Amino acid sequence: MNHEAVTVIGMGSMGRALAEAFRAAGHPTTVWNRSPAKAAALVARGAVRAETVADAIAASPLIVVCVLDYDAMYATLAADEAALAGRTVVNLGSGSPEQAREAAVWAARLGAAYVDGAIMSTPPGIGRPESMLLYSGDAAAFARHVGTLRALGDPLDLGPDAGVASLYDTALLGVMWATLTGWLHGSAVVGADGVRAADFTPIANRWLAHAVTGFIGHYAAQVDAGAYPGDDATLDVHLATMDHLVHASRDRGVDTALPELYRAYTERAIAAGHGADGYARVIEGLRA
Amino acid sequence: MNHEAVTVIGMGSMGRALAEAFRAAGHPTTVWNRSPAKAAALVARGAVRAETVADAIAASPLIVVCVLDYDAMYATLAADEAALAGRTVVNLGSGSPEQAREAAVWAARLGAAYVDGAIMSTPPGIGRPESMLLYSGDAAAFARHVGTLRALGDPLDLGPDAGVASLYDTALLGVMWATLTGWLHGSAVVGADGVRAADFTPIANRWLAHAVTGFIGHYAAQVDAGAYPGDDATLDVHLATMDHLVHASRDRGVDTALPELYRAYTERAIAAGHGADGYARVIEGLRA
Repeated sequence: MNHEAVTVIGMGSMGRALAEAFRAAGHPTTVWNRSPAKAAALVARGAVRAETVADAIAASPLIVVCVLDYDAMYATLAADEAALAGRTVVNLGSGSPEQAREAAVWAARLGAAYVDGAIMSTPPGIGRPESMLLYSGDAAAFARHVGTLRALGDPLDLGPDAGVASLYDTALLGVMWATLTGWLHGSAVVGADGVRAADFTPIANRWLAHAVTGFIGHYAAQVDAGAYPGDDATLDVHLATMDHLVHASRDRGVDTALPELYRAYTERAIAAGHGADGYARVIEGLRA
Repeated sequence: MNHEAVTVIGMGSMGRALAEAFRAAGHPTTVWNRSPAKAAALVARGAVRAETVADAIAASPLIVVCVLDYDAMYATLAADEAALAGRTVVNLGSGSPEQAREAAVWAARLGAAYVDGAIMSTPPGIGRPESMLLYSGDAAAFARHVGTLRALGDPLDLGPDAGVASLYDTALLGVMWATLTGWLHGSAVVGADGVRAADFTPIANRWLAHAVTGFIGHYAAQVDAGAYPGDDATLDVHLATMDHLVHASRDRGVDTALPELYRAYTERAIAAGHGADGYARVIEGLRA
């Protein structure tokens, strides 16, 4: 067992879940929060509450930060910034790729290693091996601490560019919103004819998890190659069936903006001469 | 083994795949096509080519139709419509729920049973037990023939309304297009920073198959209840992170219409006073 000491700064609901997962995995866990009462339950279970940020930094080689934003991180650590030298800061708060890259520069100036992380889970999922946490930044520091970070969930290494974890985070949330909105739209369409979401959803989820992910896996190579053969279904075929959905939605009083949007992307690709290509061709229009 | 005889009408690539799956499962399989040459390979493997539509209908109690559209189905079967009495027509071509319901009325007038089906697979997936085929319509006929239909893939029973299979079909394709478009958008965003789709996609697929389907399963009960507690993430929180994606997209020259669309749905729900609700609340706006 790796029993490296770890410090968690920020005791919101996510910070508390992180600290609890480290503690439960046997790591000496030090916590700090602006309002100390938030840490009471953790301290009762054996975590150590640092009186000052300086004490919190001194306690561990690995400093995990989970505060509101980058400004809050910088403001908190400013209390004893120089003490970060030789330590690793893993920032699991939210921000942009650009902010993560700036933080890597800031840490390097202090002689600290910086790893940016993104938690693809809600607090109750922390500590479960199936939960994904994305990391990018200092490769040596990540290798040194990955055994400890595994206590939080499955740690995925996205390489040395500190901005990449945050970029994946926002892109994956985009995939989620698109899918959720598509499922809500579908549920509204079938619901108009009396079908319950409880009946439609298991089939929609099976379709998503087994068929749609298969299409996506197939198209990924096409995106990288920049060639989109219509070997399963062509854009011309997609367009005709998209029209059915637009009409079925309109007939049922369901908003048509979502199907009209991807129909417009499809029409644009066809107008550019790509009607015999597959759906992945649409990415070229998104980039334009 | 059930070795019920089956007739397949229509020898496009899908019709040929259907007939081949029946034949491979041991069913005496009769085929008919307007241009007979399409059936040559099937006949070489043991299928029987009917000379006329009347012969094709007479050969089997189960008539599977896979032609371009409803007009083509009616025009083809008109050659010996009366012979359909006592038989079951399973239509696996495409059309609207309304057309399927009309076909059920047409079949009833002839004394035939009508089951409408939707194939959630491309031709190469036909015959695989994991491929979904959706059926709705005459319940007794479906029960009588489901053992035979299982040769095509997993047969899902959507009940007695003949229109429902087609309605699910179009709604599930909508879920697919929304998800594919979301994934293409995410791939364009990370791709702008040099990330290959081959690297992003396995993580996106894991996220979809394991996390997003979990959110959807959780929200289905909320949709049926018409109550959307923000117990995981509130619309207010979603809105803030959607802004990150819009900005990250714009900064990278990636089209923002998709994130702007679901952001607008989210803003609308918040403006209506539902900022503390969860994302499933958006369905109310889609219905309005």
